[in-house]
Amino acid sequence: MAELLVVGSVALDTVETPFGRVEEVLGGAATYASCAASFFVPVRVVGVVGEDFPQEHWEFLRARGIDLEGLQMRPGRTFRWSGFYDFDLNTAHTLRTELNVFEAFQPHLPPTYRSTPFVFLANIDPELQHQVLDQMEAPRFVACDTMNFWIEHRRQRLLELLARVDMVLMNDAEARQLCQTHSLIAAARQLLRLGPRYAVIKKGEHGAMLFGQESFFALPSYPLEEVKDPTGAGDTFAGGMLGYLASVEEVSEPTLRRAVAYGSVMASFNVEDFSLNRLRTLTREEIAQRYAQLHEFTHFA
Amino acid sequence: MAELLVVGSVALDTVETPFGRVEEVLGGAATYASCAASFFVPVRVVGVVGEDFPQEHWEFLRARGIDLEGLQMRPGRTFRWSGFYDFDLNTAHTLRTELNVFEAFQPHLPPTYRSTPFVFLANIDPELQHQVLDQMEAPRFVACDTMNFWIEHRRQRLLELLARVDMVLMNDAEARQLCQTHSLIAAARQLLRLGPRYAVIKKGEHGAMLFGQESFFALPSYPLEEVKDPTGAGDTFAGGMLGYLASVEEVSEPTLRRAVAYGSVMASFNVEDFSLNRLRTLTREEIAQRYAQLHEFTHFA
Repeated sequence: MAELLVVGSVALDTVETPFGRVEEVLGGAATYASCAASFFVPVRVVGVVGEDFPQEHWEFLRARGIDLEGLQMRPGRTFRWSGFYDFDLNTAHTLRTELNVFEAFQPHLPPTYRSTPFVFLANIDPELQHQVLDQMEAPRFVACDTMNFWIEHRRQRLLELLARVDMVLMNDAEARQLCQTHSLIAAARQLLRLGPRYAVIKKGEHGAMLFGQESFFALPSYPLEEVKDPTGAGDTFAGGMLGYLASVEEVSEPTLRRAVAYGSVMASFNVEDFSLNRLRTLTREEIAQRYAQLHEFTHFA
Repeated sequence: MAELLVVGSVALDTVETPFGRVEEVLGGAATYASCAASFFVPVRVVGVVGEDFPQEHWEFLRARGIDLEGLQMRPGRTFRWSGFYDFDLNTAHTLRTELNVFEAFQPHLPPTYRSTPFVFLANIDPELQHQVLDQMEAPRFVACDTMNFWIEHRRQRLLELLARVDMVLMNDAEARQLCQTHSLIAAARQLLRLGPRYAVIKKGEHGAMLFGQESFFALPSYPLEEVKDPTGAGDTFAGGMLGYLASVEEVSEPTLRRAVAYGSVMASFNVEDFSLNRLRTLTREEIAQRYAQLHEFTHFA
């Protein structure tokens, strides 16, 4: 079992969906990814919060066994995001983004973090993703995510980042935007030409696709009659995926496929409730059960 | 091997996609479904064409071994549909529908057709779908499709039809519209309460889902970098699915899953070219190869 380092945002989210509304709840890409991964391996987080970051959140993350030495606390307010979803739960509509302590954030990796073998660069300014990689000592496997804002405003640095990672994860809209094509298959082939050995395209309720230079895998999502809040689905997917890969310490076609399935399972749990609430009560046994179900739901002879 | 009866439209289509335009080419739900099914079993068609229906189309259908005794020729013009697709190839935009000989169409089944064990009621007025069933002698398995127009204008007759069939096939938008819910899982459960033992929801590039009372199966679509013309994708899917089921003469969870995969394979070939052009050159060997590939693309241990 290998450790996983996660860098990204830690946030307080205000979210409204057709099924309810929550205010200033625990959120952020690094939070979701770390919590999901913590069901599989020891996780180390790099990020920043403000002085207003509630004590209970520190305690929750610590209770999940997450190493918080790299989570800086800075004077000022924690990063905040607010948004809503309508019945098409695949698309988040941002109402407001308050960078706050993120504005001046510089990732400094504690010495114990630098040799972490698996790395997930969750959604954050590509410049900061580069800075984290600069401080790492030859990691075995690096994956990154991004978002539309960086594709638009940091395109060059993002392309340079893709040349430094083993795997890129994006949702369908981001892949189309970056590669300027409607076809996700064409987009994925283009992503692979930019550097990574693997590209994962996340399609929300429509599942996920894994592309290698010579391989392809597609998995439908776990069927849920009700999705309460899709916030963090992509991050819990990535966390589950990377967490599983780090736990088996092997990156091969069979382990990658299982990793996609574990990612999908973690995301499916996460969207059943607001914030990370479902992960608070989730057990390893429930994960194993749903994984087996997902296999049964997608298998044909 | 059992025979399959198909009722539905036979049309001359004018279609524009980002990849080209064709005028008055062979089309229609029954045509696509029959041709796809004819790779698996003997097919019998019920439909109507006008006197202008080109001789070459008769010959093509006959050459595929399709029984055309139930395809009436009536004075007047053949049914015509024209539409276009933009880069979101999942949605057809209708420009014009000319019913022509369809306006007064009454299906009369030749006596040899009445005992056909498998029946596919392709998209057509639910009233006509009922009339076909009224003439059948205890078919073993009946599946039906429909479209937004009938959901809106023949809702009651359509609901009555669902109570008479073993399986309903719909695309995602139609299922949402009929069941008035955004959730496809909720929609499918509702469809099953209306009568059929199985519901298949077709999601175009996102694959298909098969729902039974106690079972669920989801399959991603075969990955295509370029889709030239999605017209007939749903019908070739249904034709491949029903054709395979009739060929094995067994409706069980394993055969239904394989049937979904064969349907998906047939649809993936069909969208590679305009009209039914790809089916004209398609071989059983190509079907077997792509089926094996689809299995490989979707399998995890």
